[in-house]
Amino acid sequence: MTNDQQDASSRTVVYTPSEREIVAERIFDAPRERVFAAYTDSKLIPEWWGPRGVTTTIDKMDLRPGGEWRFVCRDPEGETAFRGVYREISPPERISESFEWEGMLGHVLVESADFEDLGGRTRVTTTLLFHATEERDGMLSSGMESGMSESHDRLAELLDGTG
Amino acid sequence: MTNDQQDASSRTVVYTPSEREIVAERIFDAPRERVFAAYTDSKLIPEWWGPRGVTTTIDKMDLRPGGEWRFVCRDPEGETAFRGVYREISPPERISESFEWEGMLGHVLVESADFEDLGGRTRVTTTLLFHATEERDGMLSSGMESGMSESHDRLAELLDGTG
Repeated sequence: MTNDQQDASSRTVVYTPSEREIVAERIFDAPRERVFAAYTDSKLIPEWWGPRGVTTTIDKMDLRPGGEWRFVCRDPEGETAFRGVYREISPPERISESFEWEGMLGHVLVESADFEDLGGRTRVTTTLLFHATEERDGMLSSGMESGMSESHDRLAELLDGTG
Repeated sequence: MTNDQQDASSRTVVYTPSEREIVAERIFDAPRERVFAAYTDSKLIPEWWGPRGVTTTIDKMDLRPGGEWRFVCRDPEGETAFRGVYREISPPERISESFEWEGMLGHVLVESADFEDLGGRTRVTTTLLFHATEERDGMLSSGMESGMSESHDRLAELLDGTG
């Protein structure tokens, strides 16, 4: 990997294009099929999903529109979980699902990940869509930006073979 | 009941105040506490929830913020279910919960009912908030307006002692 590639690949850019959305963009130095697989393979997800120090296990992952997912996250301080229902699975371009943190059940967002082929590299655009601005702002103040960035760093290392 | 009260009580008015909302207003000829009870008592809900000809049974009803609910609806053509999580229970003023039809899991709206004391009568304002306009329009085209109106008629009869 050249320094240029390192630079372009190593940052997650987070912004808020509307009152109810958070978008995170990241370029990974791997072909689109490999990146899409990392998002949809139940054996690979525990390798990168969540910040460092968190152990993620797959409780449910019924990867089809209408199928349920539930990931359990453990760290030294305790355990929590996230869950939802897959809405769209379009390999290798897009995956979308409802997303609910079990610590705030009833507050449901829609997460979509779009995978863009950059010729051997892949841009992943993650969009979080909320019902209300307060819910979006709650997510931003929870440390979501650094958490997602760290999770993306882990995924970059996994794809690079250094994870 | 006078004819004036009958007129004012007998219609559910549905409108779309924004691109992502449906609002339904109905005035019931009963005190707020009784109307609120009909929305929150698991013994009363099966008496009115759903259009005529539908039998509703309560599968889950953990009436607290973060508690799950699931109602099963049967008619001669089959069975379906609705589910979600309570977000707010503020007797006798407001109840709010996430709402998901199991025929389209992953598409989640927020339903809120506000109960306004009109001095012996009660205005219930039901607001459905969607993530996207297409989801709102899908609900409108599903016959939701007549279904909710019929359900409100059943509730009016129950409160009136004729149901």
